[in-house]
Amino acid sequence: MNIKIILSYDGTNYHGWQEQQNARSVAGVLLAAIRAVMGDVESVQGVSRTDAGVHAILYTANFHTEKLIPIGNIVKALNSNLPDDIRVLNAEIVDDNFHSQFDCVNKTYIYRINNCEIHSPFERTLSWHYLYELDIKKMQDAVADFIGTKDFTSFCAAGDERENRIRTINSLTISRENDIVKIEVNADGFLYNMVRIIVGTLVEIGNGKAHSVEEIIGSKDRTKAGITAPPHGLYLKEAFYK
Amino acid sequence: MNIKIILSYDGTNYHGWQEQQNARSVAGVLLAAIRAVMGDVESVQGVSRTDAGVHAILYTANFHTEKLIPIGNIVKALNSNLPDDIRVLNAEIVDDNFHSQFDCVNKTYIYRINNCEIHSPFERTLSWHYLYELDIKKMQDAVADFIGTKDFTSFCAAGDERENRIRTINSLTISRENDIVKIEVNADGFLYNMVRIIVGTLVEIGNGKAHSVEEIIGSKDRTKAGITAPPHGLYLKEAFYK
Repeated sequence: MNIKIILSYDGTNYHGWQEQQNARSVAGVLLAAIRAVMGDVESVQGVSRTDAGVHAILYTANFHTEKLIPIGNIVKALNSNLPDDIRVLNAEIVDDNFHSQFDCVNKTYIYRINNCEIHSPFERTLSWHYLYELDIKKMQDAVADFIGTKDFTSFCAAGDERENRIRTINSLTISRENDIVKIEVNADGFLYNMVRIIVGTLVEIGNGKAHSVEEIIGSKDRTKAGITAPPHGLYLKEAFYK
Repeated sequence: MNIKIILSYDGTNYHGWQEQQNARSVAGVLLAAIRAVMGDVESVQGVSRTDAGVHAILYTANFHTEKLIPIGNIVKALNSNLPDDIRVLNAEIVDDNFHSQFDCVNKTYIYRINNCEIHSPFERTLSWHYLYELDIKKMQDAVADFIGTKDFTSFCAAGDERENRIRTINSLTISRENDIVKIEVNADGFLYNMVRIIVGTLVEIGNGKAHSVEEIIGSKDRTKAGITAPPHGLYLKEAFYK
């Protein structure tokens, strides 16, 4: 059986999604819980790696098992074996060929910025504290240049070895509610640190820097874009499948 | 000089406000920061004790110092000496006689309940997870019986040695936004665990228990009231002064 699960996690206490030696990862902790419930499961496949400190709201993963346990019991059984900063929200049996990474057609991330003088203690691990002025209108005006199918090499951190840097950004929105500025982006795929570099660039624009997004993209040069926003403001919101 | 400060803290990692031997308290950590900035300060007075895990949004404290440091620098200086789960929001010089506990005329607490099947990882230390049905209308109908000047012995935990159990509840409101049920209460004073027992009683009412608040109050018997709601849903919202 191939089981697809949806989970939510607070990434604060994890070194990212991917299993690592000598570091606590979401996949490692989740796999231990799956094995406690289901017995010998080889591995768990996630839709995407997330960096240390990055969160997930609706994260898709899947694993294969031969154990017959009522699907309705899996969510409760997994949650009772997981720490409370990881929660399984749903489980279902899917086609044997389903692969949570390769079958994903697009994903949405959100990035939260706390734009105020003094960072709230309740926001300290959940948003980027940016205390300088942000002109949301200027940031929104820059959005159009990101939309579409483009070579996003300028928004890719060193260490991403994929040769094809062309991705399609379907939507990018910026909104503000009190001190919280929310940036939401959907694309068919993301390069390494792509959202965080887009956010860093947009924040510099909002603070008055005269970036031309069109020129940055055209340059295919990471140094032309803005800073990499910190990981703890970033959330994988949802992954979509055919 | 008598300095009044307003602070906000996430109480998750503290054994409450009050200084204790061998336990990390908000007052203890704050006093260490004050001494690092201001030198020999004897003690810091808070508006109220809060239990382990209880949070504060706008908490008032004061301390006396002879050190002359520009008042405008105190907030930044304290924050740079504090962990990021405690933030000083404001500092001002007040009358020498000002006492943050004794001069407080009323205080507002809020209590947050996450009423859904699976607790969000992002809410785990910030609200009480209550997964059973809550009829907000029934809870709201019970509010009127709490309002006014009454003997709240039934809503007082053992260990409160004050003889006068008469307090005045000025307002009590219950609202719901998606999964979050918020209970807000203002009173001239609170007995030990009073808000948490009120919340526990209201939640039992919302879940169908036929409590009569009038009878509970009349009985002056703690065992007639509902359970004590857990500490991590409780926030001291604000303290008011003459």
